[in-house]
Amino acid sequence: MTDATLDVVGIGNAMVDVLVQADDDFLDQNGLVKGSMTLIDGERAEALYDLLDNGIKISGGSAGNSMAGVAALGGSAAFIGKLRDDQLGAVFAHDIRTAGVHFETPLSNDTAPTARCFVIVTPDAQRTMSTYLGACVELGPEDVDEGLIASADITYLEGYLWDPPGGKAAFRKAYDIAHANGRRVALTLSDSFCVERYRSEFLDLVADHVDILFANEAEVISLYEAEDFDEALQQVRGACPIAALTRSEQGSVIVAGDEIHVIEAAPVEQVVDTTGAGDLYAAGFLYGLARERSLADCARLGGIAAAEIISHLGARSQADMAALAAMI
Amino acid sequence: MTDATLDVVGIGNAMVDVLVQADDDFLDQNGLVKGSMTLIDGERAEALYDLLDNGIKISGGSAGNSMAGVAALGGSAAFIGKLRDDQLGAVFAHDIRTAGVHFETPLSNDTAPTARCFVIVTPDAQRTMSTYLGACVELGPEDVDEGLIASADITYLEGYLWDPPGGKAAFRKAYDIAHANGRRVALTLSDSFCVERYRSEFLDLVADHVDILFANEAEVISLYEAEDFDEALQQVRGACPIAALTRSEQGSVIVAGDEIHVIEAAPVEQVVDTTGAGDLYAAGFLYGLARERSLADCARLGGIAAAEIISHLGARSQADMAALAAMI
Repeated sequence: MTDATLDVVGIGNAMVDVLVQADDDFLDQNGLVKGSMTLIDGERAEALYDLLDNGIKISGGSAGNSMAGVAALGGSAAFIGKLRDDQLGAVFAHDIRTAGVHFETPLSNDTAPTARCFVIVTPDAQRTMSTYLGACVELGPEDVDEGLIASADITYLEGYLWDPPGGKAAFRKAYDIAHANGRRVALTLSDSFCVERYRSEFLDLVADHVDILFANEAEVISLYEAEDFDEALQQVRGACPIAALTRSEQGSVIVAGDEIHVIEAAPVEQVVDTTGAGDLYAAGFLYGLARERSLADCARLGGIAAAEIISHLGARSQADMAALAAMI
Repeated sequence: MTDATLDVVGIGNAMVDVLVQADDDFLDQNGLVKGSMTLIDGERAEALYDLLDNGIKISGGSAGNSMAGVAALGGSAAFIGKLRDDQLGAVFAHDIRTAGVHFETPLSNDTAPTARCFVIVTPDAQRTMSTYLGACVELGPEDVDEGLIASADITYLEGYLWDPPGGKAAFRKAYDIAHANGRRVALTLSDSFCVERYRSEFLDLVADHVDILFANEAEVISLYEAEDFDEALQQVRGACPIAALTRSEQGSVIVAGDEIHVIEAAPVEQVVDTTGAGDLYAAGFLYGLARERSLADCARLGGIAAAEIISHLGARSQADMAALAAMI
C-alpha cells in the first residue's frame, strides 16, 4: 500500500440531484406519490426537467459523494462514472473536479442523457424522488482505467452498479486489477432492495472479492436473511476481512477478524437532510484506512463526516472537513 | 456446573422502596432537591416515614430485584441480604419469598432498621429519592452461607456492597467459596459513583475474581477512565471472560474472548419507570447462562426482562416472564 499514489478510486453512478420545492398539488398533477422513490424513463425525465428548471442542482451519486468526501478530508481521490456531454454532465464534472477529485472518464455523446434525481420537497419537508438513470447504466469495462485502479490503495465500488450488465463487468475488471496489484477492494451494498435483487451474487462477492464491506443494518440483515443485527454480524465476520456496519444514530460496528469496535455516532445539532450519510461515513472510513489509522479511528472519522453531511441540505460537504478530521 | 442445585444466588442490599406522590411544596418544606438521590440517616428516615406512611411499598434493591427476576423467568434463585426484624423487613422477606426466591438470612434485632428508599413522585413525573441504608451496611461474612454459595451455578454480587467494610469481606468470602467449588462469579458495577469510589479495587476484582461482569455504558467507561465506549470495550474484553454491557435503548454488547454480540433492545410500548432495567437485564442474562443458552440468547433474555420492567412502576415483574422467556 505504501507505493500507492492515490488513496481511493470510486466507481459508481454519476448523477445530479435536482431539488425543488413544490406543493402537494404539483405531486398530484404529475402523478407522484409523496415520499416514494420512482425510477423514470427519459421522456418523463425531460418533461419533469422542463417543469423543474428552477431547481437547485447538486451533484450526487453515492460513490461520487464518497470521493468528494475523501478529498474534502484531505485525501486523494478519483472517480469513474458515466456522463453525457450535456448540461447536467457538465455540472457534475465541474463539481467533482472542484471538490478536488480526479475525474477523467470522457463525457459521451452517444449515450442517454446524464442521470438525474428529481427531489421534490413539499411544505411538510417530505421528499418525493424520481430517478432517471440515463447514461449511468451504460458504464462498462472500457471505462475502467487500469493504471488508475492500479495506483489506488483502495478501489471503492457501489452495489447499484450491479444492475446493468456493463456495470457488473466493470466491477469485475476493477477488482481483478486491484487485487493483481496488491490493492484493496471496498464495496457498499448501496440499498436493501439492491441486496434483494442480487443476494447470491453479493454473497459470493463479499466472500471472495471484497476486503472492506460497508453496509447499514437493513442491508446486512437482508444480505444474510438474518433474524436480527447480531445474526448478520456473526455471518459477515466470518465472510469478509473488514466489515463497517452503520446503524444511524446508534453509530457503527466494525468487525475485522478478532478485532471489534462499537463506535458512537458523532453529535449533530440538527438533522436537516440524511441524504449522503452512508456515503460520507464511507469517505471518512476509507480516508482513515488509506492513512493507516486504527479501525476505531476510521469509524470515528466516518462518524464525523456523516454528522457534517446530515446537518445541511445535499450530500457534498460544506464545513472544513480536514479540520474536523484533525480532531480524531 | 451440571451438579449445581441452584441457578443463581445474589448478595446485595435488601431494601424497600416507599413510593409516594407529592407536590413541589412538600419537597420544599422538607429540603429535598427535585430529581436528586440523597443518602439520609436514621432519624431523617423515621421522620420521612411518618410523613409518607401512605406510600406504596415495593421491595427493591438491585440484587434482590435480579433474583426475583430469575425466579419469575423460571429459574431457581436465592438471596442473601440484611434486614431488621421490623415492619419493612417483614415486607421485604414476604415479597422475595412470594417471588419464589429462597431467602434464609435471619432478620436481626440488633441492627439499624431495614433499609428504605423514599421515592417522591411530583406531578411532573420526576422522582426525588432519599435512601437510608440502615441494616444493609451491617452485612458481613457471617451472613454468607457456604453451602448455599457452593450449590449455585452463579454467585451474583452487587458493587454497592463494596461500601461498608463488612460487605467487602462478605464479597470476598462469597467469591472464594464459589471458585473453590468450581462455580462462576458475576458482578454488577451498580453505579458510576460507586465505580469512582473504588476504581482500583474494582479493576482488580474484574481482572482477578469475576467471570461475568455487568455494567452500563457510564460505569464501564468510568471503570477504565476511557474516552468512549469502544475504548472501554477493548479494555474489558482483555480483562474479564464475559462482559455484558448495557446501553439503554441501544441494547447491549457482549464480549467474551473471541466472541462478540451486539443485541438490540427489546421493544417497549411505553416507558413508565426505568427503575430496575439493569437489574432485570442481569436476571435474564444469568437465567440464560445457567440454562446453557448461547451468549446472544442470554442478552436477548436480558433485553426482554428489562423491557417488561420499565413498562410499569416498580422493579419487580408483573407479566408472565416465563412465557416471555419462552419466546427467545
